[in-house]
Amino acid sequence: MIESQIKDRLTAIVGAENYDDSKAGRLVYSYDATPNFQAMPDAVVSPRDAQEIAGIIKICNSSNIPIVPRGSGTNLCAGTCPTEGGIVLLFRHMNRVLEIDEENLTVTVQPGAITLDMINQVEARGLFYPPDPSSMKISTIGGNINENSGGLRGLKYGVTRDYVIGLEAVLANGDIIKTGGKLAKDVAGYDFTRLFVGSEGTLGIITEATLKLIPLPETKKTMLALYQDLEAAAKSVSKIISQKIIPATLEFLDQPTLKVVEDFAQIGLPTDVQAVLLIEQDGPLEVVERDMQKMAEICKVKGAISVQVAQSEAEAEALRTARRAALSALARLKPTTILEDATVPRSEIAKMVKAINEISHKYGLSICTFGHAGDGNLHPTCPADARDHDEMERVEKAFEEIFIKAIELGGTITGEHGVGVMKAPYLELKLGQEGIAAMKAVKNALDPNNILNPGKVFAKDSRKRVVVTK
Amino acid sequence: MIESQIKDRLTAIVGAENYDDSKAGRLVYSYDATPNFQAMPDAVVSPRDAQEIAGIIKICNSSNIPIVPRGSGTNLCAGTCPTEGGIVLLFRHMNRVLEIDEENLTVTVQPGAITLDMINQVEARGLFYPPDPSSMKISTIGGNINENSGGLRGLKYGVTRDYVIGLEAVLANGDIIKTGGKLAKDVAGYDFTRLFVGSEGTLGIITEATLKLIPLPETKKTMLALYQDLEAAAKSVSKIISQKIIPATLEFLDQPTLKVVEDFAQIGLPTDVQAVLLIEQDGPLEVVERDMQKMAEICKVKGAISVQVAQSEAEAEALRTARRAALSALARLKPTTILEDATVPRSEIAKMVKAINEISHKYGLSICTFGHAGDGNLHPTCPADARDHDEMERVEKAFEEIFIKAIELGGTITGEHGVGVMKAPYLELKLGQEGIAAMKAVKNALDPNNILNPGKVFAKDSRKRVVVTK
Repeated sequence: MIESQIKDRLTAIVGAENYDDSKAGRLVYSYDATPNFQAMPDAVVSPRDAQEIAGIIKICNSSNIPIVPRGSGTNLCAGTCPTEGGIVLLFRHMNRVLEIDEENLTVTVQPGAITLDMINQVEARGLFYPPDPSSMKISTIGGNINENSGGLRGLKYGVTRDYVIGLEAVLANGDIIKTGGKLAKDVAGYDFTRLFVGSEGTLGIITEATLKLIPLPETKKTMLALYQDLEAAAKSVSKIISQKIIPATLEFLDQPTLKVVEDFAQIGLPTDVQAVLLIEQDGPLEVVERDMQKMAEICKVKGAISVQVAQSEAEAEALRTARRAALSALARLKPTTILEDATVPRSEIAKMVKAINEISHKYGLSICTFGHAGDGNLHPTCPADARDHDEMERVEKAFEEIFIKAIELGGTITGEHGVGVMKAPYLELKLGQEGIAAMKAVKNALDPNNILNPGKVFAKDSRKRVVVTK
Repeated sequence: MIESQIKDRLTAIVGAENYDDSKAGRLVYSYDATPNFQAMPDAVVSPRDAQEIAGIIKICNSSNIPIVPRGSGTNLCAGTCPTEGGIVLLFRHMNRVLEIDEENLTVTVQPGAITLDMINQVEARGLFYPPDPSSMKISTIGGNINENSGGLRGLKYGVTRDYVIGLEAVLANGDIIKTGGKLAKDVAGYDFTRLFVGSEGTLGIITEATLKLIPLPETKKTMLALYQDLEAAAKSVSKIISQKIIPATLEFLDQPTLKVVEDFAQIGLPTDVQAVLLIEQDGPLEVVERDMQKMAEICKVKGAISVQVAQSEAEAEALRTARRAALSALARLKPTTILEDATVPRSEIAKMVKAINEISHKYGLSICTFGHAGDGNLHPTCPADARDHDEMERVEKAFEEIFIKAIELGGTITGEHGVGVMKAPYLELKLGQEGIAAMKAVKNALDPNNILNPGKVFAKDSRKRVVVTK
């Protein structure tokens, strides 16, 4: 509950029309795309610029009011769930693409810009912004930066972090800082640009970003390799890379996922095979053709029963769209969809997929696995029902085992979804107490009153359960 | 002066043969490649592993003894000059390439490994580590990471930061942490990997690094474009990029630099032109040939009087070596060589080169300019004599104006050399008081007793002179 005197000061900054503390208004922002997390904010505030945000932060900092910055809430780690109340900060007035600079190959955007809208504007100029999270149709650039989003093109092109070269951010004390710039190189002080990328709004509120662009690849080709053996698919991935081919996309879908996706997308995906690899290469035509041929051969040698090249861009786009729809498709199966993000060195994918299957059998669960095989970034997904406490307990235990296995294989608990509240209890598995203590020290230095998205990244108690049933 | 009781504890850790407090031994490490900075350390210590470093740090932390980690000391910002005494930490026992992993495309190294040695080992496997600082023949990977070194291939491939994916580091409290891993994606907590890259040893001591590799490009071609007009050269750079060609290398040398380099290297560089661009492209043969032809045309249209393609790899290597020798060549002119690192958006290069020339005339100095034009990263270099106080004062004023101009053009005070002591007085120009305060808060959080390379990055007094004459 925000005191009326503070409400008056906040509305004086943003205008009454941008301050909503109605029950209905707050309910809308009480949850994000993460199942089973919900908490009511005290107010929803829509600032118009960085100065207004600085004013809001100063008030919140002196009154210990949490601030949760939120794009479209598509994250899967409860990163924007206002678990400790306070203000949800929306960027609906700060959603413009400010400039596309063709000489310096940069785009400058406000955090509320929709990812795909920006990508479309950039591509219309023959330029390319590679990060393409599956949620890009509705996700915002600010959200992508806060979560360091990945996507289907991460293997060749990297993730959001690799394209953020300058930021404007408001710190907890109300200071507005600028990092980096339209600069290919900048070592003036610590790399706050990258420190802020993926920090989930816990270190500052990003109010503007300068992103690096590259030339749009000339052509792109897409193919599907079909397998009756999971391990053969995983081995194809390793072999392609060790043969020094870096495809733009190298996605894996297992049979359960294929069935559900085909049922949803109806594009003629094979459902009688154990796994498929969706492989894309982009670049100059000669190179793309050569790489596609080499990869097709590798897949066959490693045991693919068939390799099919998409015959048109429409067919290729249908395949990509189907892959991006995997979460939506799986979400139709049962009321609760637990999608995880365990990531391993790519040489360990076969072992990880095998372990996921064993763990799912052990706990009597049906886990579908798909993901960015080229990145070693798998999304084991369990359709479940939050009302079934016994099942949810088994889900929790299974995912804990999956995380432990990923770490054992040299991996991490989250490749691209972020820690949020959801995975905070497992962070210690990856970082150890020492690593967490060091990160907490940085958090505390920049936000001593813990008003910036509190409760995210760092668990209140070590090793909690993955899903908190209410 | 280190107390004998502490010396005993330190030698108990590293062995007497790895603890040197002789005057001669300390003198060797009292300076680095930065002119005009010298300070005696109290001891030079060579640990054998991370555990020994942890032991050393704990002792230093409880006794307020500075620790200065040092590779080969090739940095140009006095980043490894022990300005506050204490211990210089050498990595001569921690200099191995531990593993090249061809499936995951990674190399794991100790900080003392020589950059070029590692690059040669990696290339022997058909893999590629792009960052190539001019000092790479003797620089160490640890030094490269601490300074976030750039090089001639930064435009297309990025800098050291873009290849560091995992670190082991010892913190000021003696904790050993591990960040990242052999992972294409990892968002488990704050991005400490990149925070540590470029932090100049002020946040922790790096004891191991995992670096990302990419496939070695199939071919490479090299050409020189000659200009009688500086601005025409700068405009060629902008035009190449805006035509969506990203060459591997796009280097600029002005006439004064050309003359000195040719005198030194004797490879037949033209010395009767105002400027040259050294342009390289690598990749598949078809693409390289197409890009080289397009770039040659652009250079001619923009006013190049001649474009010459190197006829052999030996000729190309001679050109690259000559470029890398620019600093050594310039250093022969006068006793003191002040080499700077102002960086601007590449669209502003013409303006920056013009400003440097005007400023050098204004102060009656001879400033040679060369650098990574494609990155907007210029190295204006002034041969001077530290004993000539009047000249040094003019040098200081000139470089201050150069930094201010770079910032005015949207640039930075250092693109790849680091801040160290040298540029600390100018950091505020780039970051503002607010930005510096935030970075200091992070430093203080991780190193409250300020034992890790103290005096670097942050100036003791704001806006000191660039060169401190003793």
